[in-house]
Amino acid sequence: MKNVVLASTSTLHGETYLSYLLPVMKELYAGITEVIFIPYARPGGISHDEYTEKAAAVFATAGLQLRGLHTFADPAEAIRGGAAFFTGGGNTFLLVKQLHEQGLMHVLRGAVEKGAPYLGTSAGSNIGGVNMQTTNDMPIVYPPSFDTMGLIPFNLNPHYLDPIPDLPHMGETRETRIREFQVQQDLPVLGLREGSWIRVKGDRITLEGSVAARIFEKDKAAYELEPGNDIQL
Amino acid sequence: MKNVVLASTSTLHGETYLSYLLPVMKELYAGITEVIFIPYARPGGISHDEYTEKAAAVFATAGLQLRGLHTFADPAEAIRGGAAFFTGGGNTFLLVKQLHEQGLMHVLRGAVEKGAPYLGTSAGSNIGGVNMQTTNDMPIVYPPSFDTMGLIPFNLNPHYLDPIPDLPHMGETRETRIREFQVQQDLPVLGLREGSWIRVKGDRITLEGSVAARIFEKDKAAYELEPGNDIQL
Repeated sequence: MKNVVLASTSTLHGETYLSYLLPVMKELYAGITEVIFIPYARPGGISHDEYTEKAAAVFATAGLQLRGLHTFADPAEAIRGGAAFFTGGGNTFLLVKQLHEQGLMHVLRGAVEKGAPYLGTSAGSNIGGVNMQTTNDMPIVYPPSFDTMGLIPFNLNPHYLDPIPDLPHMGETRETRIREFQVQQDLPVLGLREGSWIRVKGDRITLEGSVAARIFEKDKAAYELEPGNDIQL
Repeated sequence: MKNVVLASTSTLHGETYLSYLLPVMKELYAGITEVIFIPYARPGGISHDEYTEKAAAVFATAGLQLRGLHTFADPAEAIRGGAAFFTGGGNTFLLVKQLHEQGLMHVLRGAVEKGAPYLGTSAGSNIGGVNMQTTNDMPIVYPPSFDTMGLIPFNLNPHYLDPIPDLPHMGETRETRIREFQVQQDLPVLGLREGSWIRVKGDRITLEGSVAARIFEKDKAAYELEPGNDIQL
């Protein structure tokens, strides 16, 4: 049974890393002792070791051991034998490039489809979608493919941001960008605001957390979905 | 002699399309009667025809005829024989994919290197850089390469945006994104704020317009450059 949490962000404004997600992690990882951490997105360009240390410190407070995927001699083998996973945020292009080049995207998908608990934040949530084509990230590297795991049958836009009133800036709004994507591809997109996450248990997908999500379906007006509701896209 | 204008945006807040650039266009296109328009970036998903009509209406007020590249039977031949060019904004991934798939990126570069005046706005300016890897756009399609024309020896970040004070949003700032790029690639990046443009005349590159640019070189503190100054990167 799929057991997945895809969160908009790792950190809420004014809070410490992952703190708002601790209760969610305890439920998701119930019965688990070791979690494999995928640090490839490297926020701010920090090293895999530094990123793993930062995340491990928080996981320890929940009684969970965290080990970086980069420390295994055979990462594919490690994923196949892994009990549970966490993919942190950072740059989605970097994350997806690494996973594809090492042949790990489909291996990770296979392990999660079989029931290994999976937590993603930001870039780590993007790869739960059908493809990474609604990321906000900068294309700092060139991945061999934009396809991702497809743990859910739609795409995410993490850190979803409403237009900022009175900002005299002419760059495209997030909504305009998502609509431009849907001119190219008829795939629903869920704008996931900071503070909320998607929960997948088997075939059931729900929105959880503190704020509504904004849903974009091609040729339909965008609409809001409140936490606690099923997502049927 | 290279004769190029790369502008941050087509439109300033509260103004009409291209109006602030009209004096620049008159100087850039002096002696020219017909300009070829490259509409492939399709802002908001509008059609090539609609986009060309919109731009042609403004060009007409400057006494310039505009013809869309998509209306030529042989676009490469059209570029080789073209007197001058304008590439409009929209989605950089879409623009770059079209240019590469039709084998036009290097043809356009060749024509501009030989002296045909070139104006780019936003996505059309991004392709004047070394690669498109510091665009703000969403990866709505997968281009065969991120390489662009390299009319200047650095990259641009159009619509450069300073951090917004008091915004309780945890997505990366523009500066963080550019720094993440420079962890991957040692290439200077010029953050081009709306209201300014880069002017290339032969080997001389200057910043023009109404606001300073922010310059990022790897392992150096970012710094401001005022309009009227040479850009030596």
